[in-house]
Formats: sequence, structure tokens, C-alpha cells
Amino acid sequence: MAEELPPSEKLSAMALADGPPIDLEPSAERTRIRSVLAADDMIALAGKKIVVGGWVRTGREQGKGSFAFLELNDGSCLANLQVIVDSAVHPLALLTPTGTSVVVEGVLKRPPEGVKQSLELRAERILEVGPCDPGKYPLPKTRLTLEFLRDWVHLRARTNTISAVARIRDELAYATHTFFRENGFRYIHTPIVTTSDCEGAGEMFQVTTLFSDTEKVERELKENPPPSESDIESAKHIVKEKGEAVANLKSIKAKKEEITASVAELTKAKENLSRLEERFKLKPGIPKKDGKIDYGQDFFGRQAFLTVSGQLQVETYACALGNVYTFGPTFRAEHSHTSRHLAEFWMVEPEIAFANLEDDMNCAENYVKFLCQWLLDHCQEDMEFMAKIYDKTAIERLKLVSSSPFVKISYTKAVELLINVTEKKFENPVSWGIDLASEHERYLTEVIFKKPVIVYNYPKGIKAFYMRLNDDGKTVAAMDVLVPKVGELIGGSQREERLEVLQQRILDAGLPLEPYEWYLELRRFGTVKHSGFGLGFERMILFATGLDNIRDVIPFPRYPGRADL
Amino acid sequence: MAEELPPSEKLSAMALADGPPIDLEPSAERTRIRSVLAADDMIALAGKKIVVGGWVRTGREQGKGSFAFLELNDGSCLANLQVIVDSAVHPLALLTPTGTSVVVEGVLKRPPEGVKQSLELRAERILEVGPCDPGKYPLPKTRLTLEFLRDWVHLRARTNTISAVARIRDELAYATHTFFRENGFRYIHTPIVTTSDCEGAGEMFQVTTLFSDTEKVERELKENPPPSESDIESAKHIVKEKGEAVANLKSIKAKKEEITASVAELTKAKENLSRLEERFKLKPGIPKKDGKIDYGQDFFGRQAFLTVSGQLQVETYACALGNVYTFGPTFRAEHSHTSRHLAEFWMVEPEIAFANLEDDMNCAENYVKFLCQWLLDHCQEDMEFMAKIYDKTAIERLKLVSSSPFVKISYTKAVELLINVTEKKFENPVSWGIDLASEHERYLTEVIFKKPVIVYNYPKGIKAFYMRLNDDGKTVAAMDVLVPKVGELIGGSQREERLEVLQQRILDAGLPLEPYEWYLELRRFGTVKHSGFGLGFERMILFATGLDNIRDVIPFPRYPGRADL
Repeated sequence: MAEELPPSEKLSAMALADGPPIDLEPSAERTRIRSVLAADDMIALAGKKIVVGGWVRTGREQGKGSFAFLELNDGSCLANLQVIVDSAVHPLALLTPTGTSVVVEGVLKRPPEGVKQSLELRAERILEVGPCDPGKYPLPKTRLTLEFLRDWVHLRARTNTISAVARIRDELAYATHTFFRENGFRYIHTPIVTTSDCEGAGEMFQVTTLFSDTEKVERELKENPPPSESDIESAKHIVKEKGEAVANLKSIKAKKEEITASVAELTKAKENLSRLEERFKLKPGIPKKDGKIDYGQDFFGRQAFLTVSGQLQVETYACALGNVYTFGPTFRAEHSHTSRHLAEFWMVEPEIAFANLEDDMNCAENYVKFLCQWLLDHCQEDMEFMAKIYDKTAIERLKLVSSSPFVKISYTKAVELLINVTEKKFENPVSWGIDLASEHERYLTEVIFKKPVIVYNYPKGIKAFYMRLNDDGKTVAAMDVLVPKVGELIGGSQREERLEVLQQRILDAGLPLEPYEWYLELRRFGTVKHSGFGLGFERMILFATGLDNIRDVIPFPRYPGRADL
Repeated sequence: MAEELPPSEKLSAMALADGPPIDLEPSAERTRIRSVLAADDMIALAGKKIVVGGWVRTGREQGKGSFAFLELNDGSCLANLQVIVDSAVHPLALLTPTGTSVVVEGVLKRPPEGVKQSLELRAERILEVGPCDPGKYPLPKTRLTLEFLRDWVHLRARTNTISAVARIRDELAYATHTFFRENGFRYIHTPIVTTSDCEGAGEMFQVTTLFSDTEKVERELKENPPPSESDIESAKHIVKEKGEAVANLKSIKAKKEEITASVAELTKAKENLSRLEERFKLKPGIPKKDGKIDYGQDFFGRQAFLTVSGQLQVETYACALGNVYTFGPTFRAEHSHTSRHLAEFWMVEPEIAFANLEDDMNCAENYVKFLCQWLLDHCQEDMEFMAKIYDKTAIERLKLVSSSPFVKISYTKAVELLINVTEKKFENPVSWGIDLASEHERYLTEVIFKKPVIVYNYPKGIKAFYMRLNDDGKTVAAMDVLVPKVGELIGGSQREERLEVLQQRILDAGLPLEPYEWYLELRRFGTVKHSGFGLGFERMILFATGLDNIRDVIPFPRYPGRADL
């Protein structure tokens, strides 16, 4: 390849392209603790020399300060690796405080018999230390409440619970992609910034640059006051004069250079005028038009919002690629302070062409079962921790859901069942037409059936306009998947594919047709039956882990008054 | 399980829980066209009866209207399945318009010899048709420009190019998750709404509910004017009177019922007063405090923005779990109309604990190679289409990048090389200290080395505060991966892990320390070396496909003045 270089560069390029860069510090290969402690034949690793890096969970000096035990965690798994450091290797007091980071080179050894650890590391060299002042570190080794940890979102992943949740969340995300891929779905990135409102209602966050643009203008006006009307007038006058001068020179057939110079002056005068006129228009405050905020001047030239669902947009890809799904953040600006609501949360939304409601329910059932089985197969250690500390039934629940067929009953029959309940008095009375409350949903799945239940064919009055109207004219082809512990986990429907019916449903919902014109065109041109659903990803994690508060299962929770980092 | 039901529900629950729901329309199992045309032994499928669904790309009647050929595409692959429909099976004119959707049951046959299709479908029944009026359909079968298609984002996935891009994008996303999983990384969902500004500069979108809250207040005030000061005064007076009445009754030891009634009146009066006082505070317009917008009244109680990068947040998880990555949408409110910029785009950002710049470069190189190899292994048909229509070198480029070691040179040496270039005059003159422009980057990778180049150790003055200061005091441990066709594909760095150095770098950048306190705490408590990088996902797709405009490689492009759907 050197032949093709320009001659002058041949030498240097040759020298540079060969071999590793020598001015970089070499890196020690780090062994993840998981690959030791979860090795198929761990004992075979005894005698190996490795480098590990992690944070000290607990450290204690022993033998009158002659050596120390460090419980080292690197986040690759829940378990700590026990490291034994001799005082000759490193000053022990610098290593033992909880939160200290260390990179250690050592040899894996089998501990004395009767000790529960199966391998421990005898330190030979401490390569690096990141100290941690125990007087200042906010996460001492004592058990901390989850509520306390919410004030330390930048450090809380260093705890057992939050790191286990992070690993479970990662596994569920990967399982999601794997499930849909195995079933022929394509992942579509639907937009976060949207000018459509999926539900036709909903509290949405607005996305804007009007505040910063206004600030910029106001700052500019302060530093450099706008021109007055008379400034404009005199600039206009100069343009007129310069124009006349050009015309005059032309009429007397002056020298070319003279005309050119005169034209240049005219151009300059015109530019100055238009700059002044531009600045004359600048006004402090949010731009208004006809007394209302002028969103025409906002970044997107209109009002824009954060998406509440990618469904409507992903339908456009279902009506082209067949099976698709979206998996991304969605937003609700609800002033809701419950343990089940976030302002920013993740949703999985598959959309299936040529599929009716039954296909949709089957897909939802298979997906949820797949997730549960995945956790049983890939997250044993973290799930056992969750079961031990938070919810004894967590693993049983995964096994139940992954193995038993979901019950499928119509809304009408579900209401019949609930009306006949005598042993419990519901806070919200049950009658046909109501939206089932969480207490009803949980009673169906936890008490009556004791397994997941899919309720389908809901009254049209309580469901969104895009759900397919059934032949009875009263219900729509909607379905909700209810599971023990959280109630509604999934909501879905067959979508209305008939143009005229959909138009009427939009109007009946009190919505204008115009913003949905693109959505209607999917029905106008080669319409197909299609169905889909949405799974609240954090709800799935609550269901899996048995945790109670949604703020603990997302890395950086957002809710009214709070958006740390 | 029926035994555990309350007696009254036993029967109905039994009846409902058994068997499939009978009031649902049964679904036909659809075969995806890909599973026919990409079958390992396609010819073995001849004679099979299947149901397919898709959209007619071209249809033509033959044999004087006795039968029709339909080129049917279902988005599962680029190729169409040829369907032959006899006029006795269905009126042909309803099937042939481009854009029509059909669900067909038929038998797979080998076509007459010499015809290129390897299997075709003889239709036996047309199960469903979604008509498409050729006079109105905006996407006729003639070749349409990509620019034209940008006005039809809800339909454009029905074209060869955009559907191929969607499949390639999906494959790259899955390859990303696979690569990081195989290398022990955990996927972390960093927040979209943020109160931190990663780069310390950057044009950010603001997220707010102030406009809608203000509108609500103004509407409310119009319908129901606020109380006057005298309304408040008289309400206060009533409270005083009622209070005195209670005190009086108590002092004369009145009957308990009388006191209770009087207290109730007092309570009512107080409630009325506080309601009036609350409404008295309502003012039209965006809420202000000390002449400035009062973001304390916004949803999050402070100014909030759309993220420009998940890096700072994902560092908190790297400093707990070790190897992590984030993959999600990021935003820039730049008024940039180029073919390389979007207001909303996706980024992949790994962050690696205990890793220095060389580890970072190796990870980036392995990742890019993995993506290229993945496309060669999984996207042959779509890549051949791209190579044929858009960029003859697309497949060669993937092979080159996946197989050749990346060149690694320092910024200083790269500048030396560029200064010595004589055969080309750069628009931007080169000297040590400048930020390399796209022309320089592309010259390095396309002309000098003809393969991917990693440039590292940049002058500190042109890079962000969080990049690790090298011992020379002049450069930082930053690196950019440059590839042919797009130039910079990846930017990354080792992060400054030394508390005091980082504090000084923040101050030197003219930034306040306070908002970065949480970021500094990662260094204060158990700091570790760590490194990471960001890959612009759309740039990777441009690189892979050879397409020129970034608006064509994301399903719903957002840029100044435009946010369709």
C-alpha cells in the first residue's frame, strides 16, 4: 500500500502504520469475577494468576493487622470474590474501607476446608487503588433503604439490589430482542419527538427551543439595542442615494471601474438596511402571533411533543415489513406520585400485519412466557437474591407463568365473574361498561384463576379510537394481559383497518380528521388487518423481581419535581 | 385449580378457562415470503400449499385477461414472490394495481424452465384484498427519488430502498446488542430527559409543561375570573367571625352538637378562604420570578432538556458494573440543514471500567469489524441491492473494514502527514491545534491509508473537559475512528479519573463545579480508570449502505422545520 502514497509521505506513513502505538500505556487484561465464580469447573482455576478490578464491599484486617480480607465486587455478578492481602503487599488500612476500588494481581486458591467460598484470591500486587473516605461515603455497608438510595442515583448501582436489577433489566432487554428476532420481527426506531398524539388525549411534554431562542434575543437586544424607526429611514435614504448614483454613472456612461465601485457601495447600503430591518423586528418575550404563542418560530415550525407511544408510527412499518416492533422510551406528563408511574419509561410495542386479535394474544402470551423462562435460565443468582430479600414467591411466579397456558376470557364474562364475587367487597363497584380497576384485574389473576389472564373484547366507550370495532357494535377487539403481582402488564388490540369505520371512530372520539390523515392513508392504500400490543418494560421488571416501586427498576427515574442527572 | 375458587364462581370459571376462546375469528397461518425464497432447499417446497400476505409491487394481466402475474412483497425480504391468479379465482383488475394488499392461498410450483424465478405461487383462493386506487396512490411503480419519498415517511417503507435500509438498520441494532453481550457488557437505559449538559455547551431542546399549564390557567381564568382583593378580605372576615363564634360557644360551654356545628362552619370558611387565595395567585402568562421564567413551576421543578449523550450518566454504571453500554436516541437543537445532521439520532455508547485508551481503541475496532462482518453474513440480498443501485464499493468496503487492522496514529503524526500533503489543497489549512475537518479525516482514511484510521491524543483545547489529560499537559487521551465514505464514525476517550485534575479541567472550561458534583463523586469514592466511546448509529448505516443523506436511514427524520408524524 505504500506505493500509492504521495512520495513525500511514504516514509512517515510506513513508520506510523506498522505495529501498535508505542506511546500508549499498556493495559492489563482484567478477569471478570463472574468468569471465576460462575465457571463450570471453578476448582480447575485454582493456581491461576489473574488480575481483577472492583470495589471493596467489606474489608477487615485480621491477625493483628498482618493481613486483610476484602470482599471484592466488580458488578459482573452478585457474588463477591474474597481477596486476601498480606500487609507486606500493601498498607491494609488504605484497602479496607467500603467503596474503595482496587486492581489486584494474585493467584486463585482453594480456601481452607469448611469455608463456604470456593475460590479466593491471594494478592501478590495491588496495581491500583481508588480511595474512599468512610467518613464521607454515603453508602456504608449497612443495609440502606431503597428510598434512601433514590437520592444517590449516581452511586446506587454499587449496591446488591440495584446492580441485580440492572442485570435483570439487561437480560429482559436482550430476551426481548431475541424473542422478536426469532419470530421474524424487525426492530424499528420510532421517533421520540412527535407531532402526533397517539391517544388523542394524554398529558404530553412539549419540546421547544423558544425559551432559549428568546433568551438569546433578549441578551442580544440588551448588549446591542435595536435600531429606531429613524435609523431605518436614514438607511433607506442612503440606499436611495446610492441607487441614484449608480443610475447616474450608467446614464453618463462612466468608466467601468467607477460603476463597479458605485454598485459595491449600493450593495453595502442594501445589506446594512436589511440587517437593520431584521434587527428592528426583534422583540423581547416569547414570539406571539394573533395573541397566541407563535410555534411557527419554534425549532420544528410547529408544536412538538415527547411521544406517549410509538404505536401509530410503527404501524406504518408493519404495513410494509409485516412483523415489526419498537422498544424505546415513552413519556407522560402526569402529576402522578404513585409507585407505579414514571414520567419517562420504556415500552415494547410489537405490531403484526395480517394478524387478528387471537394472533395478538398468542404473541403476547408467548412473549411473556419467553421472558420468564429467560430469567430462569440466565439470572438464577440475581433472582434468588430477589426471592430471598424481597419476594419469596418471585421464582415460583416465573415458573408458573412460563409453564401454564394463559386464561382467555371476554370482558363480558370477566365482569360476570366479578359481579358474582361475594367474599370480597371492591372499592369500585363492577358493572358492564366500567374500566376494570387494578383491584378487579388482580382479583381475576391472583384469586380467581391464580395465573395470567387475558381479558378481551372491551366496551368501545373505554378504549381508544384505533381499536377494531366488533360486529356487535358495542365492543372493540382489545385485550389486556393481567398477571399476579402487578395486574395489567400488556394492553393491545386489533387495529381498525376499515377506512370508513376508522374515520367515524375518530370523529366519535371528538377528534379532528386532519392530523390523522397519514394514519388513514394506511387504510386507503392497500389496507391490511393488523394487531399489536404494548408491554410496560418497568412493570415487567416489577413483576419479575417482586419490587414494589417503579423508581427502583429504572436507572434514572423521572417523576414530578425530580430528574436527577 | 378449580377447587380453590369461591363456590359461586366454580362453574363459570371452569367453563371459561377451558379451550380456546370461541368468539374470536380464527386466524390463517401466514408464511413469510423470505422463508420460501431464502429457504436452503427451496425446490423441496414445490407442491406445498401456503398462505402469503403482502403488497403488489407490479401486477399485469396476461392471456387476454385470463390470468394475472402479481409481484408480491411482504417486507420480509427484498425479493418478490410471483403469484399467478386465474381470472376464475378473482376479478383480476382489483388485484393488479401497485400498492394493493392481498392475502392468497395457493400452491408453490416450479415455473417453466428458463424463467428466473425459482418458485411461484399458483393462487387457489384470494382470502383478502385491500384495494389501492392507482389514480391516488402516491408511490407508483416508477423509480422515485429519495428526496420525494421524504414527504411520504408513512408509506416509504413500501419501497425497495427504504425497506432494505430498515432491515439493515435492524440487523445493525441486533449485532450491536450481540457484540456487547458477548463481551460481557450490560445494556443501561440512560435518561432522555436530563438536567445535565454533557458537553457543557451544545444546543439543547428544552422539555416543559409550562406552555400547556399556562394555557390551562388562562382558560380557567377566562371561564371563571379570579377573586378580587375585597373577595379575599370578606372571606377573611367570615373566617374571623366563625372563629369568634366557636370561641364564644366554647367559653359559654355550649352543647357539644352546637360547638361541632360551629366548628364545621369555621372549617368550611377556612377552606373557602384558602381556595380563594390559591386562585388569587393565578396569573395569565408564563410564570415569572424576579423577572425570569420560574422553572420552579415546571414539571421537574427546574429546567430540563433532551439528552445530547448518555455518557456521563452511563459512567455511573460503569463505575459499578464494569462494562456497560447505552443505545438510544440523542438530540441536538442545531439549525443544521446538512445531509449529515439530524435533530434526533441514535447513539451507541459503551463505557468500560479499568480500561485505558488502548483498550478503548481495541474495543471500537472490534465492534466496527463485528458490525461489518455481521452485515456480510446476514444482509447479503439487501447489501447487493445497495451496491447495485447506490454504491458499487459498499460490499468491498465492508470486507476491507472487517478484515484489515485499523491504523493507529497520534494526532501529532496525523497533522505531520497532512501538512506534507502536496497533491491536494485543503480548504482548511492544517496546523497543530486545529480540530481536523471532514476533508482531513477523509483524506487520511481514503487517500493516505485507504482503510480505517484511529487518531488519538488530541490537543486538550479542542476536546471536552472529561477527557483524561496526558502527561505532556498538552494533549488528552481522546481518539476518533475515521472510515472511508463518512469520515468520523466514532469519538471516544479515556475519562479523567483524578479528582483534582477533573475539577481543574471543569473550571478551565469555564463551567461551574456544582452541577457536576455527582460526576466528581465518582472520582471521590473509589475512582477507577475508565474509557468509552460513542458511535453515531445513522453514520454507521450511511457507511454500510453508501447512501448519502442521513434523512434516508432513520425511519422518521427530525430536522429544523420538520417532524412529520
